[in-house]
Amino acid sequence: MRGRVYLIGAGPGSPDLLTLRAAEILGRADVVFYDALVHPETLARATHAHKTAVGKRSGRRSTAQKFINKRLVDAARKYEVVVRLKGGDPMLFGRAQEEIDALRRAGVHFEIVPGVTAASAAAAELGVSLTRRGMSRHVVFATPRAAEGERGNDWAAAVLAADTAVLYMAACLAQTISSELIARGKPADTPVALVESASLPGRRVRFGTLVDLPLLAHETEGGPAVVLFGEVLKAALAQPGTSSADGLEEILKQA
Amino acid sequence: MRGRVYLIGAGPGSPDLLTLRAAEILGRADVVFYDALVHPETLARATHAHKTAVGKRSGRRSTAQKFINKRLVDAARKYEVVVRLKGGDPMLFGRAQEEIDALRRAGVHFEIVPGVTAASAAAAELGVSLTRRGMSRHVVFATPRAAEGERGNDWAAAVLAADTAVLYMAACLAQTISSELIARGKPADTPVALVESASLPGRRVRFGTLVDLPLLAHETEGGPAVVLFGEVLKAALAQPGTSSADGLEEILKQA
Repeated sequence: MRGRVYLIGAGPGSPDLLTLRAAEILGRADVVFYDALVHPETLARATHAHKTAVGKRSGRRSTAQKFINKRLVDAARKYEVVVRLKGGDPMLFGRAQEEIDALRRAGVHFEIVPGVTAASAAAAELGVSLTRRGMSRHVVFATPRAAEGERGNDWAAAVLAADTAVLYMAACLAQTISSELIARGKPADTPVALVESASLPGRRVRFGTLVDLPLLAHETEGGPAVVLFGEVLKAALAQPGTSSADGLEEILKQA
Repeated sequence: MRGRVYLIGAGPGSPDLLTLRAAEILGRADVVFYDALVHPETLARATHAHKTAVGKRSGRRSTAQKFINKRLVDAARKYEVVVRLKGGDPMLFGRAQEEIDALRRAGVHFEIVPGVTAASAAAAELGVSLTRRGMSRHVVFATPRAAEGERGNDWAAAVLAADTAVLYMAACLAQTISSELIARGKPADTPVALVESASLPGRRVRFGTLVDLPLLAHETEGGPAVVLFGEVLKAALAQPGTSSADGLEEILKQA
């Protein structure tokens, strides 16, 4: 087995939110298997690599994942530097474990290169820290989306127990999120923010309340989106002044 | 007000886990205020900047924070490019909100540059994904450390409700963590991992159980440390084979 597989986090979207290490490894990659959401400029850093889209957005069948696992192992037999490039951080909602386990079973050496996750990019867009002294000492990252055949982990309980919550892959399940959390006692007027395509030029930020979340989600344009809840959001909305992203000041004033 | 303040996440420790954007901004910084944990090579990227350590590790008095806020505002009056460089991601346990609010109040333009957080780097060291299909659909990042005068947010409830938990600034409170979680019903033999100085040459990984956590923490050498819990850890420990970091294979065999 001559090669080494690098599971690399490409970050939240913008190509300059890639890490220096990821850029260096891409520059000497022989082959790159990449997800649908990876930016073309990031991919272009792999100047001499053979590039293959294995782009699945969430919800596809597990056979597709098995096929990716097999291709990674096969590539490590033929090439020195094999890159598996994923959006965000590989260890958060990236299905990395299935690939790691397959590489371990096959005796393939691998290395994980962490990336900036979508929640950090969304918080940066909003200018709202996910933790805050005296207000939020914990933040949960969760997804309401159940995989095929998955047993029912209680995402709502985790959201209710945490000071701040960020839901990944949430826009298309906005109705479920809203109904379920309200039914379990979260106030309908809890402030929420929906951040779509964080860090990209087409970023969109929507503020509202938990009961309006399905309406906010209806206005999204198909980009990756996270939904944020918590007291930290409310406190930030109450602050006047200059904000982080272009145009966000206006949004804050309207909210 | 001529300048712009960049609150930049320097990442978990290794200087090549900085983002390309952060590196670019540091290269044109006029002044940099940096935390104690920022790597000297990262700081060296600010070739022509005046650099000031405002290094506080957690637990200092809030007057120190107010002084930092004031210095940021003052610097934006004098310089074009002002950088506030923090370890990890600014929006996770970085006390960024106090600085953001001060900048907003003073009408200073600012921008947040997200970074790789310690939990992602620790997961990469372990080769253990924090989420996992069919096993972990949520992960909580929490700290058991209370700030001066802080009301008692229930970090333990958040940890108990989540499939996976990562505790920041946890090593020195290992006894509290262990006692509190066991008292609230978490089994004493819950697998835990303590990752110190993730991504740095002096990284140390210790595996054990919840009841042994104080012993594991006793062996740390003062580097930044996170503690991980959850089923995902147990499943990964049961996997044979090649692991991510040098020497981790041996550790996994012993665990």
